[in-house]
Amino acid sequence: MKLARYAANGAVQIGRIDQSETAIAPLPGITDMSEAIDRSHEIKAAATGKAQPLAEVKLLAPIPAPHRNIFCVGKNYRDHAREFSNSGYEAGAVKGAEIDSHPAVFTKPSNTVVGPDDTVQLHAHITSSVDYEAELALIIGKEGRDIKKERAYDHIFGYTIVNDVTARDRQRNHKQWFLGKALDTFCPMGPWIATSDELDPENLDVKCWLNGDLRQNANTRDLIFDIPTLVATISAGLTLKPGDIIATGTPAGVGLGFNPPKFLRSGDKVAISISHLGTLTNTFQ
Amino acid sequence: MKLARYAANGAVQIGRIDQSETAIAPLPGITDMSEAIDRSHEIKAAATGKAQPLAEVKLLAPIPAPHRNIFCVGKNYRDHAREFSNSGYEAGAVKGAEIDSHPAVFTKPSNTVVGPDDTVQLHAHITSSVDYEAELALIIGKEGRDIKKERAYDHIFGYTIVNDVTARDRQRNHKQWFLGKALDTFCPMGPWIATSDELDPENLDVKCWLNGDLRQNANTRDLIFDIPTLVATISAGLTLKPGDIIATGTPAGVGLGFNPPKFLRSGDKVAISISHLGTLTNTFQ
Repeated sequence: MKLARYAANGAVQIGRIDQSETAIAPLPGITDMSEAIDRSHEIKAAATGKAQPLAEVKLLAPIPAPHRNIFCVGKNYRDHAREFSNSGYEAGAVKGAEIDSHPAVFTKPSNTVVGPDDTVQLHAHITSSVDYEAELALIIGKEGRDIKKERAYDHIFGYTIVNDVTARDRQRNHKQWFLGKALDTFCPMGPWIATSDELDPENLDVKCWLNGDLRQNANTRDLIFDIPTLVATISAGLTLKPGDIIATGTPAGVGLGFNPPKFLRSGDKVAISISHLGTLTNTFQ
Repeated sequence: MKLARYAANGAVQIGRIDQSETAIAPLPGITDMSEAIDRSHEIKAAATGKAQPLAEVKLLAPIPAPHRNIFCVGKNYRDHAREFSNSGYEAGAVKGAEIDSHPAVFTKPSNTVVGPDDTVQLHAHITSSVDYEAELALIIGKEGRDIKKERAYDHIFGYTIVNDVTARDRQRNHKQWFLGKALDTFCPMGPWIATSDELDPENLDVKCWLNGDLRQNANTRDLIFDIPTLVATISAGLTLKPGDIIATGTPAGVGLGFNPPKFLRSGDKVAISISHLGTLTNTFQ
């Protein structure tokens, strides 16, 4: 199933997108994604309302107010780990130790979440180094703690795209990355959630364009810490709950990888596509 | 006002503690602390139900499920910044640069929150270096973004105690501190919230005892980044909302400051007292 949250006919609804990705039909009685997660078995076969062309509705962030901060993984593709460590924007970077032995995990709070086509704020009064990061995100469907790698996929409801937008100066200056990652509108999410049965998360193309120029182009098979490792690591001693979101890290090609860095400017448009997950486009201002 | 969430007579209620800190009276119609924050002006003069001796009720975490992760500040007292940098548990520590020029901010998710007298789990299967951190925490009462230092106190509803419990090995190994800070039960909170008018937050004694031995003993006047600076820094581009919690950092005297470090063991009891905020006691197991 591909599930989206959308506005149409004056209401916000949860709907199922058809196989051709051209139409959406509402799931009666389901008003937010947490309900869809709770009732996932049932809604697969549920009758839907009248379908509408996707082009006639406004897709929204699938989970606009996560019940706790989004878990995010840093430096999880080799080429990106190197470009980041060499950029001068990683506090405490050590030459020759660009690849971490343990995943770096930080969070983004709920004020960061916006939807497809929403405007991302550049916050020019506090930063001049806003950068994009195209990422596959997974959504937890089943509660668990100390989840073993071999059971990790049992706990995943589905997948979506996030843009882990980052103010590089704040990420560097404050050493802990949180403040550089947490500004209002810094987590575009969507356009939809594909449930686990729709795709092979270990073989998805991740692409990101800035104003039409291809900037990032990778495949999730190249994650340093794969999805089962991330779920096992994060859930160690920490109970994961339905609706939790884990962003898996970005590949090489972000703005700080250029010399000099190329940061985002007003009017820039960033589009991220991941196989089966559609395209998430946002304008920066 | 001193406000507490408590269990008595088979119900969970919000109540006002009297000046002598010996009795509590329920605030009729107020069922959680977010309501108390919203209606703070009104409840100050509101009639309460019948008071009970504090000793006869169970005090609970004042905000058991924060609407987003707790904001936490690291290395915010000089002696602690030095003991941490010299301990071997700070990834990327640089000799001579123990005091940061910008506050380090990370988060603790809602699964960490427990109340007074609750048991804190040692998670012995994943860490052997659990440590305490006594901290003053502030609670936001009024929404704001880009809050100026001179207006910071207008946005604070009150104060409470948190123990920013930390697994030092995970804090070090994962570089970003989050995973070392985020284990289930790792944020004891309480025993009550004192509203802003009850105290001078820039002159509070912070003390922490391990099994009756005084381990931490400081005053909030010694914060490197004071409360107005923290509110201004965190709210830059990030909308703070009522119910947000900011833990302001711990003074020297934590277990990693000893050589060799002294980490917590099963049966250990940690008690934290802050002027006007009572004592938060928890046993580790």
